[in-house]
Order: sequence, then structure tokens, then C-alpha cells
Amino acid sequence: MLLIRGGTVVTAETAHRADVLCDDARRIVAVGPDLEAPSGCDTLDAGGLLVMPGGIDPHTHMEMPFMGSVASEDFYTGTSAGVAGGTTTIIDFVIPEPGHSLLGAWKDWRRKAEKSVSDYSFHVAVTHWDEKVHEDMATLTRDCGVNSFKHFMAYKNALMVDDDVLLHSISRALELGALCNIHAENGDAVAYLQADLLKRGVTGPQAHPISRPPSVEGEAAQRVIAIAGLLGAPIYIVHVSTEEAAAAIAAARARGQRVYGEVLAQHLVIDDSVYADPNWLGAAQHVMSPPFRPKHHQKALWAGLASGQLQTTATDHCCFCAGQKEQGLNDFTKIPNGTPGIEDRMSVLWHHGVRTGKLTPQEFVAITSTNTAKIFNIHPRKGSVSAGADADLVLWDPQASRTVSAKTHHQNVDYNIYEGMTLTGLARYTISGGKIAWADNDLRVTRGAGRYVERPCFSPDMQAAIHRKSTP
Amino acid sequence: MLLIRGGTVVTAETAHRADVLCDDARRIVAVGPDLEAPSGCDTLDAGGLLVMPGGIDPHTHMEMPFMGSVASEDFYTGTSAGVAGGTTTIIDFVIPEPGHSLLGAWKDWRRKAEKSVSDYSFHVAVTHWDEKVHEDMATLTRDCGVNSFKHFMAYKNALMVDDDVLLHSISRALELGALCNIHAENGDAVAYLQADLLKRGVTGPQAHPISRPPSVEGEAAQRVIAIAGLLGAPIYIVHVSTEEAAAAIAAARARGQRVYGEVLAQHLVIDDSVYADPNWLGAAQHVMSPPFRPKHHQKALWAGLASGQLQTTATDHCCFCAGQKEQGLNDFTKIPNGTPGIEDRMSVLWHHGVRTGKLTPQEFVAITSTNTAKIFNIHPRKGSVSAGADADLVLWDPQASRTVSAKTHHQNVDYNIYEGMTLTGLARYTISGGKIAWADNDLRVTRGAGRYVERPCFSPDMQAAIHRKSTP
Amino acid sequence: MLLIRGGTVVTAETAHRADVLCDDARRIVAVGPDLEAPSGCDTLDAGGLLVMPGGIDPHTHMEMPFMGSVASEDFYTGTSAGVAGGTTTIIDFVIPEPGHSLLGAWKDWRRKAEKSVSDYSFHVAVTHWDEKVHEDMATLTRDCGVNSFKHFMAYKNALMVDDDVLLHSISRALELGALCNIHAENGDAVAYLQADLLKRGVTGPQAHPISRPPSVEGEAAQRVIAIAGLLGAPIYIVHVSTEEAAAAIAAARARGQRVYGEVLAQHLVIDDSVYADPNWLGAAQHVMSPPFRPKHHQKALWAGLASGQLQTTATDHCCFCAGQKEQGLNDFTKIPNGTPGIEDRMSVLWHHGVRTGKLTPQEFVAITSTNTAKIFNIHPRKGSVSAGADADLVLWDPQASRTVSAKTHHQNVDYNIYEGMTLTGLARYTISGGKIAWADNDLRVTRGAGRYVERPCFSPDMQAAIHRKSTP
Amino acid sequence: MLLIRGGTVVTAETAHRADVLCDDARRIVAVGPDLEAPSGCDTLDAGGLLVMPGGIDPHTHMEMPFMGSVASEDFYTGTSAGVAGGTTTIIDFVIPEPGHSLLGAWKDWRRKAEKSVSDYSFHVAVTHWDEKVHEDMATLTRDCGVNSFKHFMAYKNALMVDDDVLLHSISRALELGALCNIHAENGDAVAYLQADLLKRGVTGPQAHPISRPPSVEGEAAQRVIAIAGLLGAPIYIVHVSTEEAAAAIAAARARGQRVYGEVLAQHLVIDDSVYADPNWLGAAQHVMSPPFRPKHHQKALWAGLASGQLQTTATDHCCFCAGQKEQGLNDFTKIPNGTPGIEDRMSVLWHHGVRTGKLTPQEFVAITSTNTAKIFNIHPRKGSVSAGADADLVLWDPQASRTVSAKTHHQNVDYNIYEGMTLTGLARYTISGGKIAWADNDLRVTRGAGRYVERPCFSPDMQAAIHRKSTP
Ligand SMILES: [Zn+2]
Ligand SMILES: [Zn+2]
Ligand SMILES: [Zn+2]
Ligand SMILES: [Zn+2]
Ligand SMILES: [Zn+2]
Ligand SMILES: [Zn+2]
Ligand SMILES: [Zn+2]
Ligand SMILES: [Zn+2]
Repeated sequence: MLLIRGGTVVTAETAHRADVLCDDARRIVAVGPDLEAPSGCDTLDAGGLLVMPGGIDPHTHMEMPFMGSVASEDFYTGTSAGVAGGTTTIIDFVIPEPGHSLLGAWKDWRRKAEKSVSDYSFHVAVTHWDEKVHEDMATLTRDCGVNSFKHFMAYKNALMVDDDVLLHSISRALELGALCNIHAENGDAVAYLQADLLKRGVTGPQAHPISRPPSVEGEAAQRVIAIAGLLGAPIYIVHVSTEEAAAAIAAARARGQRVYGEVLAQHLVIDDSVYADPNWLGAAQHVMSPPFRPKHHQKALWAGLASGQLQTTATDHCCFCAGQKEQGLNDFTKIPNGTPGIEDRMSVLWHHGVRTGKLTPQEFVAITSTNTAKIFNIHPRKGSVSAGADADLVLWDPQASRTVSAKTHHQNVDYNIYEGMTLTGLARYTISGGKIAWADNDLRVTRGAGRYVERPCFSPDMQAAIHRKSTP
Repeated sequence: MLLIRGGTVVTAETAHRADVLCDDARRIVAVGPDLEAPSGCDTLDAGGLLVMPGGIDPHTHMEMPFMGSVASEDFYTGTSAGVAGGTTTIIDFVIPEPGHSLLGAWKDWRRKAEKSVSDYSFHVAVTHWDEKVHEDMATLTRDCGVNSFKHFMAYKNALMVDDDVLLHSISRALELGALCNIHAENGDAVAYLQADLLKRGVTGPQAHPISRPPSVEGEAAQRVIAIAGLLGAPIYIVHVSTEEAAAAIAAARARGQRVYGEVLAQHLVIDDSVYADPNWLGAAQHVMSPPFRPKHHQKALWAGLASGQLQTTATDHCCFCAGQKEQGLNDFTKIPNGTPGIEDRMSVLWHHGVRTGKLTPQEFVAITSTNTAKIFNIHPRKGSVSAGADADLVLWDPQASRTVSAKTHHQNVDYNIYEGMTLTGLARYTISGGKIAWADNDLRVTRGAGRYVERPCFSPDMQAAIHRKSTP
Repeated sequence: MLLIRGGTVVTAETAHRADVLCDDARRIVAVGPDLEAPSGCDTLDAGGLLVMPGGIDPHTHMEMPFMGSVASEDFYTGTSAGVAGGTTTIIDFVIPEPGHSLLGAWKDWRRKAEKSVSDYSFHVAVTHWDEKVHEDMATLTRDCGVNSFKHFMAYKNALMVDDDVLLHSISRALELGALCNIHAENGDAVAYLQADLLKRGVTGPQAHPISRPPSVEGEAAQRVIAIAGLLGAPIYIVHVSTEEAAAAIAAARARGQRVYGEVLAQHLVIDDSVYADPNWLGAAQHVMSPPFRPKHHQKALWAGLASGQLQTTATDHCCFCAGQKEQGLNDFTKIPNGTPGIEDRMSVLWHHGVRTGKLTPQEFVAITSTNTAKIFNIHPRKGSVSAGADADLVLWDPQASRTVSAKTHHQNVDYNIYEGMTLTGLARYTISGGKIAWADNDLRVTRGAGRYVERPCFSPDMQAAIHRKSTP
Repeated sequence: MLLIRGGTVVTAETAHRADVLCDDARRIVAVGPDLEAPSGCDTLDAGGLLVMPGGIDPHTHMEMPFMGSVASEDFYTGTSAGVAGGTTTIIDFVIPEPGHSLLGAWKDWRRKAEKSVSDYSFHVAVTHWDEKVHEDMATLTRDCGVNSFKHFMAYKNALMVDDDVLLHSISRALELGALCNIHAENGDAVAYLQADLLKRGVTGPQAHPISRPPSVEGEAAQRVIAIAGLLGAPIYIVHVSTEEAAAAIAAARARGQRVYGEVLAQHLVIDDSVYADPNWLGAAQHVMSPPFRPKHHQKALWAGLASGQLQTTATDHCCFCAGQKEQGLNDFTKIPNGTPGIEDRMSVLWHHGVRTGKLTPQEFVAITSTNTAKIFNIHPRKGSVSAGADADLVLWDPQASRTVSAKTHHQNVDYNIYEGMTLTGLARYTISGGKIAWADNDLRVTRGAGRYVERPCFSPDMQAAIHRKSTP
């Protein structure tokens, strides 16, 4: 057992002085002032620290096969890096090859993830449509603890689905009580622009953002919102990076539609000037989709998070080392898309969000953890500090600083997009499953200690949506 | 002591089976499964019921002197009616006559409110500007537990303040850590339209909405949002009744401004067809400002609440009986403005909101109680079901129905705007200060049992705003 | 020669008393006060009448093969009905069967149209994409007087094209100096909703609007605007029927994009209540796409026309008689889509637009004639009253009324959607090619008198767009 | 008489080769190909030139007393400079001191303007409200050729009027068939921010834009649009400089309201970086209201002009020399507000507008001349090239360039805000009242040659608005 003493418990709702007692079954058993330590209980002094729910990163790609490579970060190293940054749960993506079985892919990913040091769960991607997919969705929701399905509107000739698939899959998910996730970019337009750029001899990474301008994302967001609106289904749009997409989501919500938006920490603080790096690799290391954007988009993302129109923050953590990025040396469309970030998300949010007055500490907890738990229906087990919840906590030092570097980070990748950035606000201790997994710069994780988190269907929001559909 | 057993505790965050134990000091002391009853403790069976934080109505006008009359509902009858409907706290308005002392008026209202049966607090109105007001604002925030000030942009030649007063008062409040409330209607325009209507011989209550069309509210909302934006100050707009005002709030929030909006239960379900009532009194009984609106506005209000762009629900409870309304028999501008509603707010929200799928039960708690407590900085003392919170609870029967009528209601006024409406979802028991004050239709309140609730300055949101102002 | 005397010449710009002299070569030769009649010249007294450019209907489908039927109105009867209503030019659509040659289809349509009584021109539809289409577009623009290409985003498995075709075709048209027209509805969504309705046994015409809700049009408009924006190309969206699409166009224009919108007269005054007609045929006669809409959309369309954000009015004139509509007796998706209207467009616009103060007479001319001539680059030959212009004129009686009926109309179809509507404002005389073709209810047309109007590429707008593309 | 031969006549509608014949009564008598020169007629070779309507500047302040100074440019020098730049008509402002007679002030201004070299007209400002103003408005419209009234929402304690005055004056103007002009900035907010800046010791010109941020203009535009909307009256907002105000106008138009917006040439190309000039005078010379804005606002202004949502361009030409600007050496609020620009407006619009593809040549004519003539009801006398129109023309050389400098300009002021800017597109000849007043850099103006232009009430737009008000 572990008693965390003398800290300030900060949740999405409140901040108050309280101790937190964790049992040996990975649960929080009590939260309150001046708790007595049971005999044999370890105690941890949280004086001056904020005790918050461990971070949840709803969007990672550990050891993902993609664009002819496999992401360098695996579930062991990736969840370890998360723990070092205060993140105790990830939701990764099962991505079946087009035409392959959802269920089979889910089993593959289960196996790969067994080495995780902290808890994990899976969205499952729908990359084509047929009767088998229709059936697998039922099996996955009923038997496998999956309550969310992912769709790509981009990556033509690979993962992309068209509107017809979206209509069928979103409708099926609604029926099953599951939520659909969407990567919103118009894949036809991207492919057209890529071909046009290559034809004109523009082959370097500076072409990447030109091939995916903001309106390509805004359009796709509008479209899938319209489709979900026809079906009366909630949807969750991943990695919102533009004011156009943020505005589309806000407008839909103002019409009464339940649409959620996720923001990547990196889009909040890094802009498209990175693609002007004369060093090929420097630019290529920032190739991800959606790309980094002109600076003014960041304002809309921060405001969306503060106002509650965008609900979650993630990383799309997807790591490719120099040798992998170099696949695209002569053709930017072959550079594996992705950037690392799981370790720094929470510090970036605290430093650039809370310390500038953009966010309250409560809002920080909401967007790094609690909202994700609610939307994906694992709240209050995750995302809360309350008796009965999982003992996943971060003890946050709001005043301490660190300087980010690939030299010192725990991510299994050879660069860090925040290299050299000094951030105030860091995880002093991370508690995962009731154990201290990160203590003052000392990583104490255990391979395989993480558990698969089953997520039941029919969250309150889904219930309301389904109810609304059936109400005359 | 009182042990509430076997219910489902529903908060703004979660729903779970738990018992709730209240002590004799008006506090909740424990929330959890299978609590043991201390000796001598009363128990209350909450089987099949939802145990929720008691409602907070942030906008009432008990026994208010207004337009040459005094509202018929006093603090005793009004808080009693609130308890009968599940509302256990009100925030009423101290309204100094123009030129008079804020502090003096606050003392008057304190005295009037002593007969309340449940807890109460006060916003204080600023109806003119001078050095004395500047000083009184400091005194009220420092010594009197006031953290919010009210401003009327309408009621020309009475309560109305101009932009210059708004600038000074909002700026002063920000400095003190207090929040400004705004009644947003362009008072010059209303006065112009009223005079024009009277000149043309249109004197009946059907002229009331014509003299205050939606754009008059939308304009004022835009204006005060712009003013607050210049100052970097949060504001709270009361009784948002139009899609124009709702859109102005949403747009400001999308720019990163902290603006809150309150919706009255009556505006959500009653439209402007009531003014076509050929019966003069029937129409006059609906004269309030802002007036009831064309039906399509309701959609924007519901969506605003569901999406979190509008945060609270209130009643603007302000009662005038037939004889009082008849002051305006020959001149609609003399009809005392106001409608009753404190008793029915929560049922209206449950029936029309939750049961139609527009809102989840958690959202119901947020907008009837928790959000108000947070915005006005009395959370988690109010608006939560947690150890340490005030023992103000409602035990909600989500399936039971009742039909509203002035014949049976507890409000001290001779009509009910929901007359004849059958509502499903009602307060089976209301607990105020740890005592059962309403039990299955039996009102057991005690005159004077309510306490004045001091509200400290500098809520998390205010802190963030002030922080932001001081960050380079 | 013909001298029109004593009228008030109204153009898109001005209104002034002037005579108009037409020569025998179908041209206007002089416009001015008190013109002298050359010897042998006929004179026509226009006292009390407005002399305006003949109407141009940019969207008709004469004798079109569609949905297994052929529209009942042919080029002879259709242009005759136009003349009776004051319309002297139509732009019809050449619609190649998917896979077939654009050029071949254009030749077919040229042949069919030879019987026209007044001038005509053609948009050519692109319904698939390959090298041949790419080439034919060059031939058509260079040799055939075609400067506009049409695309259908709906009619899945028939005329529909996907985003990839749109990208290629719009880009190609820009290169050639031609403008793309778009039917904007999401065809996948329509097909999905149709199948769903049929599966649920909803087979009548009341299902038609349910299968094509407003957001289906709004989405497609957004999408094609985004696509055109990527390419820097102007586009023209046909039959804008919703506030969503109108707003998308206005927003694009406010960003500096050149987007044009066309409104059908029928959408301005008829709403979706027609589908509730218990008489199957009555409802089926209103089956067209986009369908009639809830009434509030009309306000946005009128305002769009008055503000210049929507530029043209048309009819999508496409006639199917009872026997043809009955193809869909058991399946609403088989009802041939289309409504008549060429004869009544101008009276509908005058009566409901000018007489209510929504439009000035100058704006009436702009949206019934001049704007279309400018956009499709036949101005000032068409759409103006000036020396050198084609002698196509309407002499408008702004005070006279008529009651519309299929019994008396000149359209070759057995119903009229305005049946029984009394309209004030009508064509007293219509001059086509310098000849009186309609005189006080007497139709004096000549089969084959109409000429094919070649439209050159590179209108001022296209030039500006192309210039902008090439400016660093 | 003067025959202009061989040019391309460009109007708001068309471009075509035509000669233009002007008589000795200051009128155009013929426009057409190959006109014959009457005997004794001068001819002017316009080969390679564009023959366009002379520019109209609807917003100038010649010799205006303002902020304790008098503008250095008088009607003689100012209209001369206009002619040198291709502008042949100005509409200046009669500004009565608050409390003084409108009619008396109009007479004063008439006298001052007699020395003008080209035509001129007057808007008359309403700076307070009483019965006398109500009467003077009738006299001015009936007897004095005034059809527009100006209102300042800023300049507190000087010219500013409150909402009540706006309501009365706009309503009165509507009744008389006249149009109201509005300077839209919230004067209370400006005064508050000015006082706050001075209190904090910020006294230099860099404080000027901080005291009038974009939202101050956006708010006022919203407000007056709402007020005009209540009254059903068209309004004209002068010097729109922000995307906020442009959006407010576009939104109103999309609701069917007739709102016009004017843009100053200088706001289109100069941004707020000028206030960072370390040279006090350099910054002070740019002090005008509304101030120069962050660069991104310019995009909205250009798009507004191209899309027709903003209709006119002007200069707010108001000149103060160094010695005058220095009044505000120690207090930026005392720097006389104003910048010069009448001479360069048309070249700036051509160079930055037409040559970049933002505008077509026809749109250039519309926004520099024709739209203004229409809105202020002097079209087609002004703003057109047609028989019967005033012989005010500019012969434009679209290829020639010049570099702007105070050393060479004709404005009576010691600086030029475009100093050093090279502009392509210039007035080769300017014809005013049928005479060559500017010939290839040679100014040939005659003191007093300009005439006062009476503007009749009830333009087509006003008629439509009034009609609409009276239509049930
Ligand atoms: Zn993605
Ligand atoms: Zn991803
Ligand atoms: Zn109020
Ligand atoms: Zn109130
Ligand atoms: Zn169509
Ligand atoms: Zn069509
Ligand atoms: Zn001004
Ligand atoms: Zn001015």
C-alpha cells in the first residue's frame, strides 16, 4: 500500500489538500485530509506537489508498421517514456491492412502490447467495408472491450475510406454504442497536390505542408461532421490542427451535434516554419499529418481547449529515426509520417497553457486525462482521483523546470521536436497501478506491468445520442 | 445525522451507486458504497432515486421593489418553493437605487433574506458610477462575501448603465477578483421602440416582444463582450434568450475569451406565441425581459447548454400577481416585468432536456448546480456530493410525473407559466443543511434555517484571467 | 427595323427614358431619347413599360434523357415558353453518357437544339475523367464556343464524379479559361439515405426530401469550394437551395475566392410542404433535386441575391408528365427528377422580389439576365440594352397581373408548380433577334429562328484568377 | 468640344473600344466606335489608354477645423490634387459644431468650397439631436441637394453621438429618403483606453492604435447595424478597416439588410508597423482613426471589395503638417487625426488591386467611382461613361509607373504616406467638366471651375427599403 501525503489533489473539478491511499490491488481506496497510514504502508511526501490523475494519451502508434517502415518506439519503451512524463495510460490504434480482419489485427496488437509498463487500450481502424467488418465490429465491442473505431479520410490507396464506408461504419458503431474517430484530411486532394508538386520537381520536405494545406483538413472535418449529423451519431476528430476544423466542430456543437476534437501538444506550440529548415533531416523530422501550421492556428486550438469545444490532448506519438525518415530523401511523399512526443505532452501543456493563464489547473487535468476517460467511457476508473479509481497518478511539481533533449529523453527515437525547450512544470513522481514508476528522474518501470483496459460501450453521451434517435 | 442509502449518486462527472452520510453540522461526511449508519443516525431509503447536488438558482428576485411594485414572493416563500423543486441555494440580487450606497443596499437585503429556509447569497448591482461605488466594491468583496456585480444595459432612466460605467466597473471587479453579471439588452433601443409603439397606439402586452426584438439582446451581448475583451475580464451574461447572444458568446469563447452564459428554464420551452393570448392577463403574465422568443431560438439555447458554451440555468424568478400586472393595463411598459419559476426549473430541465436525449444526467447536474457553484466560486462546498461539502441534496425520481399548477405549487404568486404541463422527473426528497426539507410532497422547511453563503474572490477562472493579464 | 418608343430602359445599372432602335441584323443600333424612326421602320409603343434585356436562363434541360425517360419539353416548345415569359436566351446542358465523348454529345445537342425559336448555348458535363475528356475540353473551348463545364456531385452510379475528377477537371478548365458549374449534393449520402428509407418501407415522394436534407447540399458546396480554392479557380454552383450552401459561398467570397451561386425561382417561393400532399402525383410533381426546403431557407436565398453573394436565377427547367413521374409509383428514387418553370421565372422574381422591396428593378435585371451574361462571358452582347448588343428585349408591364395555370401556359408539360398563383409584373412584348416574338399574349415565334451562341473563354473574372495564380 | 479617340472605354460593366465626345456644356454627348469630330472640336488621342469615369472620393475633409487645428489642404489645392490622380468629384463633410445649426454649417462649407477646381458635394454631420436638427434635415434634403448625413460613434465630448441620437437620426433620414454614414468606433472605450494609457505614462503615437483596437471598431459596426436593422434603414459605414467590421457588414447583408462599407486606400496597403517608427513625426503622421491595422485585416478588405460586400474606396483625406501634428508631442490624444491620400488612391488601387489579380478593371471602376455614384444617387450623371453623363473622365495608362513623393505631389501637406512607393497605373489625362485638367503631368485646373453637385433623395435602394417597410 502507498499513502501519498500532504499534496494538493487537483482534479478536473477542484483543488484541495488531501492525502491519497492506494491499495495493493492497484486501486485508490481513500482520498481525504489527514488519512492514517495502515500498518506496512509506504508513504510518499507530496508536499508542494499537485496530485493529479495520471495522463491519458488517446492517440499513439507504438511499433506501427507504416509507409514501409515500423515505428521505432515499441510498447515497452513508449509506455516507459509516457510514465516519465506523467502519462499512465495510452490508447493505441489497431490498424488492419486493408481487406484484413479487424479481429485478427486486434489480436496481433494485443500481443505486441503485452510488454507495456502501464495500462493501454485500443481503437480499431476500419479501412474497408464488407460483411466481415460489420460482424467484427460487433465481436470487438461485445467481447473485446473495444468501444471506438478509427477512420482515415486521407492516405489514398492505403488506409483511406470514402464517404460510403464512413456512412456504414459510423451507423454501425452507433448501433453498437461505440464512437468513431476520424483522421480528417481530403485524401484525393492530398494525392492530387502531391503529384502536382512532384511533377513540378518539388520533392523536399518543404513540399509536405503545401500538399496538405489547412483547407484540406477543414473540408474533411466539415464533411464527416455532416455525415455523422445525418446519422445522429457522435464523432471524435483526432489531431485538430487548424482554425477551420476547430470552427467546424464548434459550429456543429452549436447546432446540438455531439462532436469531439483532439489536439496534439506539438500543434499547439510548433509552427510550419520548421519546414524551412535548410537541413533536410531537420525538416523531415517534422513531417507528420496534419503538418505543422502557420502560427495563427494555434490561437484557435488553445481557445478551443479552454472553452471546452476541443476536449482532449494527445501526441499521435509515432517515431521514425533518421534512417527511416531518409526513405523519402528524393520524394517527400515517402518520408514516414510521424513525430514523437508522449514524454513531453504534459509539461508542454502546463508550461504553455497553465503558466500563461490560458488554462486553469483544473482544465489541465480535464484535457490531459479526465475528458478522454469520459469520452472513451473509462471514467471514473481512469481520469479521476477518487476511492475506487485505478491508482494511476502523477505528482506534479508546478515550479520545477527541465530542458528537453533527445540526449536525456526516454523515447526510443533519435530526436525530440522540443529539443532545447525549457519547460516549467514536470512529473516529480508517477504512480502506475499503485506503484511508484517514476521517482524524481528515476524510472522504475516493470516490463509487462501494464494491463489491457477494456472499455465498455454506451457512455453517457452515446446513450443520450441513441436516446435522441429513438425519441419522436 | 442522516444516512441516505441505496441511491445512485449522480454528479457532473459520474454516476455510481453510493450511500451518503450527513452530519449534524450540515455537512456531508462520507460518500461510498455500503456506509455504516452511526448510532442514532436517521436513514433514508434512496432506492431507485438519483442522489444529486441540490439545485442552485443563480438568478432570483425575491421581494424585489421594481417598477413601482414589490415582487410577491418573499425569501421565505421563495426558498420554500425552491426546496419543493429540488433547489437548495439561490443567488439573489441586491439592487441599490441609482445613486444609493451598494453597501447599504446589501445590508437591507441581508435583513430581508434572514427568513430564508435554505441557503442564499447575493450579487450586488452597480447602477451608477462614482468614487463611493469604487470603494464599496472593495468593501463588499473583502468583508461581505460578495464576488459578483450585476449591470443592466437596459431599463433606461432606471437601472441602466452606459458603456463608460461598464468599463470602469468591469475593470474594478477584475482588480478585486470578482465577476461581473450583465443583463444584455440595448436600453436606448428598447426605449425608442416602446415610445414608437405607444405613439402608434399599440399599448397591449403583445407590444412587449416587439419593443425588445432579438437583435436588441444580440447587440448588447456583442458590446459587453467586446468591452470585457478589451479589459481581459471574464463576464457572465444572464438570461441568454436568443441565438444571436448565444452565438456571440460562442464566438468570444472561440477567440479565447472567458464568457459565461445563463439560460432561463422558461426560455427553453415557452415561445413568443404566449403574447398572442387574447386574454390581457394571460399575455401580461408572460411579460418579462428578455421576452419569450420565436421557437427556433430554443434550439440554440439547448445546444449551448449541451455543448458547454452556455453553462448555467436559472429562473429570474420575479413574481407579480394579477393586481400588480394590471398596473400596465393601458400601457405595456408599465407592466411589472417578471415570471415565476423557481419551483419547476429542475423538472423542466429533466423532462425536456434529459428525457429527450439533449442532455446526459451528468450534464443536468452541471447546468442546474455544479457549474454555477464553480463560476461563483463556492464549489465544492456547493454543487458537489463529496465529503466536506454542504449537505444540500436532491433525491430525484427520474420516472415519476406531476402536472404543474398554480393551485398546487408553493410559489406565492397566483399563476404558473407551466400551468397544465406534465413533467416526468421530480424531487422526491430535498435535503437542505443535512435536514429533510421536502419529503414526498410534504414541505418541512424552517423559517430562517437558511444561511448566508459568503463567496470568496478569485475563482480558478478569475485567477487565470488575472494571470494572463500580467503575463507578457 | 424596329423602333421601341417611349419606354423606360432599365438595366442592371440605371433606369431612364429612352427609345431603342433595332436593325434587321438582330442588333440594337441606338439607345437614346427621342430617336428618329428610319424610313420603313416598325414602331412599338412602350409607354408605361420597362424595356429590359431579355431574360437569360442559365440552367435548362430541354428534351433531356434522364432516369429512363426523356424530358417532355423540347427546344422548340421550351424556348417558345421562355419567350412568352420574357426569356430570350437559354444555356442548356450537354450531358454525355458516362464514358462517352464530350464532343460527340455536344454535336448531338447542337442538332436537337436547331429547332429553338430563340438563342441558346451549352454547358458541357464532365461525368468521368480520362485523356479523351482532357482533349475534348480543349477542342470544345477552342472550336465550339463552350466556356463552361458541368459536374454532378450527386446521382451516384450515373452522373456523379468524385473529388479526384473534380480536381482534374476544374484544374483543366482553369488552364483553358473556362468556368466549372457544380451540382452540389453528396451523392454517397443520398444513396445511403435512399437505401435506408426503402429498406424501412418508405417509398413515397415524401421520402425524397428526407433523402437529401440541407446538410447534404451544404457539405458538397463546402467541399467543392475547398477544392476550387486549392486550385485558385472560380466556380459556379448551380441551384443553391439552402442557407448552408449560401453561407458557404458567402464565406468563400469573404476570403477572396471567386465563387458564384445560382438560385432557382421555384426555391424562392415554394417550400417543402408540397411533399405532404396526400395526392401522390401532386407530391411527385415536385420531386426535383435539390428538393424544396423548409421555408426559412428562402430568406437566405433572397438576401444572397440582394446582397450580390448569389448572382443569377434559373429554373433547371426539366419537364416530366404524369405518366413519366409514375415510373416511381412504388419507389420514389425512380421518379424522374425535375420541375418546369422557364415561363414564369421572371414574373415570380418581379412579384415576390421587386414588389416586396427585396430587390430594386436594377437588381432584377442583374439577376435575371446581366450577371449571367457577364459570368458566362457573353456580355454586353447579351444582358445589356446598348448599341451593338443583340436585340433581345423584354417590354415589361410592372402593374399588370396574370394567374398561372397549366391550362394556359406554353410549356409542354401537364402541370405548373405555380398553378393558381397570381403574379403582378409580366412580359407585355418580347423581342428576340430584333423581331417581336411575343405581343400581348400572342406568341409569334419561328421554329429555328434561334442561333447557337458561342461563348469565348477568359472572362474578366477568369483573367483575374489566372493572373492571380501567376503573380508571385 | 472634345473628342477622345481610340481608347478603350472601361466601365463597371464592360470594356470596349469607343470614342467619347464631350460638349461645351460639360456633358458627354456620344460614346461609340469611330465618332466623327464636329467642326471646331479638339481631339485627344487615347490610344493605349483606358477611358474610365473620373474617380469619386466620397470621404474628404478639406480645410476642416479639427482638434484645435485646421486641415492644411483647402478645396482648391485638394481638388487639384484629386484631378492629378484621376479623381474628379469629392464628397466632403459639413461638420457643425455640437449644438450649432446644420443648415448654417452647410452654408459655411458651400462658401469654402467655391474655389474647388472640380465638382464637389456634401454629407452633413449630425452631432447632437433636437427639434432644430429634425427640421434642418428636411430643409437640407428638400432644398439643398443633401441626401446623406454623417454620425460619429467616437470622438467623445466632441462629435460623438449616442445610440439614442442614432435611432432618431437614422429614422428621420429614412423618412426623408436620405442615407446615414457612420464613423464606427466605440467612443467610450477609446476614451477609457486613452486615459488608461496616459495614466500609465504611455504618451507617444505608438499608443494611438492601442487605444483603438480592432474590436472597438467591430463593436460599433455591429451596434449601428443592429440599430439600422431595427429601423429598416440602409446605412453606409465609412472607413471599414478591420475584418471584424467587414464581417459584421457581410453578415447583415446575408440577412437581407442593406449595409454599405467604404474602404480607405491607405488601409489596404499600410499596416500598423508604421507606429513603431522611432521617429516621433514619422509615427505621428500616421495617426488617424481608425488607425492602421495588423496586416491580416487587409485580406478581408480586399476580399470585401472583390466580392461586392464592401462597395467603395475613399481616402478620408485630412492633412496636417508637421507643426500641426506636433500639438500632440507630449500627448498622443492631441495629435490631429488624419492622413493625406486623394492624389494616390486610384494608382494604389490599380497597382495593388488590378495588377495582382484581386480586382478586374471593371471592379476597379465600380469601387473607385460607379458604386459611390449609385449609393449617393448621382448615377449615371457621375460614375458612368454614357451620353448625357457629366464629362468627368480619366484616361488611364495601365502600364506607366511613377514613384510617389511629397516632393512632387500636388497635395498641400508636407508628407506622403506612400513616400517612395512605385505604382504602375496612372492618370495620363483627367477630363473635368469636359476640359482637360491634367495632361501628362501638367496640371491645368481653374480655381472655381468645380460645381456643387446636388444629390436627390430616394435612390433605388432607399426606395426598396422604404417600400419594404410599408409592405405588410
Ligand atoms: Zn492521423
Ligand atoms: Zn495517428
Ligand atoms: Zn434581467
Ligand atoms: Zn433578473
Ligand atoms: Zn442539378
Ligand atoms: Zn440541372
Ligand atoms: Zn472617421
Ligand atoms: Zn472622416
